[in-house]
Amino acid sequence: LARDRNRREYEKALIKMGEFALIERIFSQRAAQMRQAQKPDLIDLGIGDDAALLAAIAADEQLVVSTDMLVEGTHFFVGTDPFAIGYKSLAVNLSDLAAMGAAPLGFTLALALPQASDRFLEAFASGLFSLAQQHGCHLIGGDTTRGPLNVCITVFGRVPRAQVLRRDAARVGQDLWVSGQLGAAARAVQLQYQNQIVEAAMLARLQKPQARIDLGLRLRGIASSALDLSDGLFGDLAHIARASHVSFEVFIDLLPIEPALQQLAPDKACQLALCGGDDYELAFTADAAFAHKIGQISLSLGLPLTRIGRVTAASAGAPVTCLDATGVPLSRRWHQKLKPYEHF
Amino acid sequence: LARDRNRREYEKALIKMGEFALIERIFSQRAAQMRQAQKPDLIDLGIGDDAALLAAIAADEQLVVSTDMLVEGTHFFVGTDPFAIGYKSLAVNLSDLAAMGAAPLGFTLALALPQASDRFLEAFASGLFSLAQQHGCHLIGGDTTRGPLNVCITVFGRVPRAQVLRRDAARVGQDLWVSGQLGAAARAVQLQYQNQIVEAAMLARLQKPQARIDLGLRLRGIASSALDLSDGLFGDLAHIARASHVSFEVFIDLLPIEPALQQLAPDKACQLALCGGDDYELAFTADAAFAHKIGQISLSLGLPLTRIGRVTAASAGAPVTCLDATGVPLSRRWHQKLKPYEHF
Repeated sequence: LARDRNRREYEKALIKMGEFALIERIFSQRAAQMRQAQKPDLIDLGIGDDAALLAAIAADEQLVVSTDMLVEGTHFFVGTDPFAIGYKSLAVNLSDLAAMGAAPLGFTLALALPQASDRFLEAFASGLFSLAQQHGCHLIGGDTTRGPLNVCITVFGRVPRAQVLRRDAARVGQDLWVSGQLGAAARAVQLQYQNQIVEAAMLARLQKPQARIDLGLRLRGIASSALDLSDGLFGDLAHIARASHVSFEVFIDLLPIEPALQQLAPDKACQLALCGGDDYELAFTADAAFAHKIGQISLSLGLPLTRIGRVTAASAGAPVTCLDATGVPLSRRWHQKLKPYEHF
Repeated sequence: LARDRNRREYEKALIKMGEFALIERIFSQRAAQMRQAQKPDLIDLGIGDDAALLAAIAADEQLVVSTDMLVEGTHFFVGTDPFAIGYKSLAVNLSDLAAMGAAPLGFTLALALPQASDRFLEAFASGLFSLAQQHGCHLIGGDTTRGPLNVCITVFGRVPRAQVLRRDAARVGQDLWVSGQLGAAARAVQLQYQNQIVEAAMLARLQKPQARIDLGLRLRGIASSALDLSDGLFGDLAHIARASHVSFEVFIDLLPIEPALQQLAPDKACQLALCGGDDYELAFTADAAFAHKIGQISLSLGLPLTRIGRVTAASAGAPVTCLDATGVPLSRRWHQKLKPYEHF
């Protein structure tokens, strides 16, 4: 008996190979619970081996893969609520799936932490899994290590090959649309820099962005190209322009500026809506014939979808030109005042 | 004309959205070159959209996914040659594919850097792509951001479903094998801590581990379970033991200890071989009937494959028991002196 007890103690000591095995248990247990509740069909093997195993998608589908790294001090302020860090780390990745019209399957999580704090980890995992459960996106693998706080998620989804929303599929003459209301997240960053109080609702727009997965799914077969707004509409549209060899005209009076920004000078609000990042709304292009259907999608999702401009032939000049209410291009000087968003 | 020139300058200023767009260009150009040279069949869309797109693997295959994060000061010393950082970041991920018997397909790279240094990035990319090319493993997506140096790679591979090497497939009575020679990487870490000179060959074992992809492929249909040795044989075997509900007996006199460690006291060399991490060799189990075939694989790969023990019924005690030359279990006290590897 004494020998057995010694053996158990010895084994316990061996298992305690640093705190990181325990951290991994927090995540693997939650992942297992979620798999048991939701029984996903493609995940053959999750956490616990050298790698995860996914079954083959259908031959007419594509597997969608995206990765995003969030660093303390770059993507979130030091001292941010760990629930929000967990939530946002997955949200920005899901947003990339949404922009492709993909349905989420799963994700891997790599996490560097300065030390193992139960309070931090439980809150982080709660934020992460609350969103994962909402979208049926399963944690299938990960890595935990010591280091400055850094969260790297790689997310997987599936989409029918013929309906994927790519950046290179915008066509001249199509309408340009954007979801939601723009500028709130950037305003929340700005206020924090000025040490001003940020209303809870506005802080949530920065810390808990809504990945537009449902919208992406509904836009299959309707939108041609799409992307999610992480660095600001003005800069992000240039990516579609470059990939599709087109330009954009944007009517700035049509921009769906976040109502809470109406207290600001119109120019400042417009700058935040055009160049503020972290909104994670979708911008997409579609043939004019789909305008009515897009209106119906907006109603059924309870999400504003606003036609803000159009796709034009690639010009030698700027990929994105802003127009005033009368349809006249704003000056070069006006455009030059737009500052690219640099997170914080 | 003047107007066009102004437009061009304005556009140039807009494109220069921070240094990170340029960094991403370094990687995307190399990725494009490699895709053009090797023409992989499953990668429908690489870098440049919100996400990458992979075509479906065959229905009787599984997609293998693994992620590893390397942090400066935890996984490599400050001031490590950036070529080695790039090389090792991919090597440790490929090693996970090898341990599943998978063939590499591609990877995503997320990189946090304190500042953009051309010299660092070119060397890092050269290390990374030299290994990627060797294994036909294509960079399909990424993220670059400002932050303490951190490299997170997620790697993808494919394996026939019936031949995957999983940790839960070891069976009582099978032989336990290990590839290569053990302990050199841990010795290199130890010497650096002691501010001693590390021979180039030994430093390379730490900085440029060889992912045993070829071995993993040859072990399909021969090995039952496998894993790669990142935290040391003794601790890593416990993972197979737990997953397969078995135990292991290891003959310490059969351990393939790195010859360069023969100058050390036998106990010290044994500790390094048993508990030293970062070797990235494969440990695997196979039916005794395969011993001859495994010998042939060893010869054809020019890689030592050593039978070091056997799979036994799960014992209430330790998952791994070391035996002396006469087959007698070493004492509990002897086992307790084995220290788990904590990288550095």
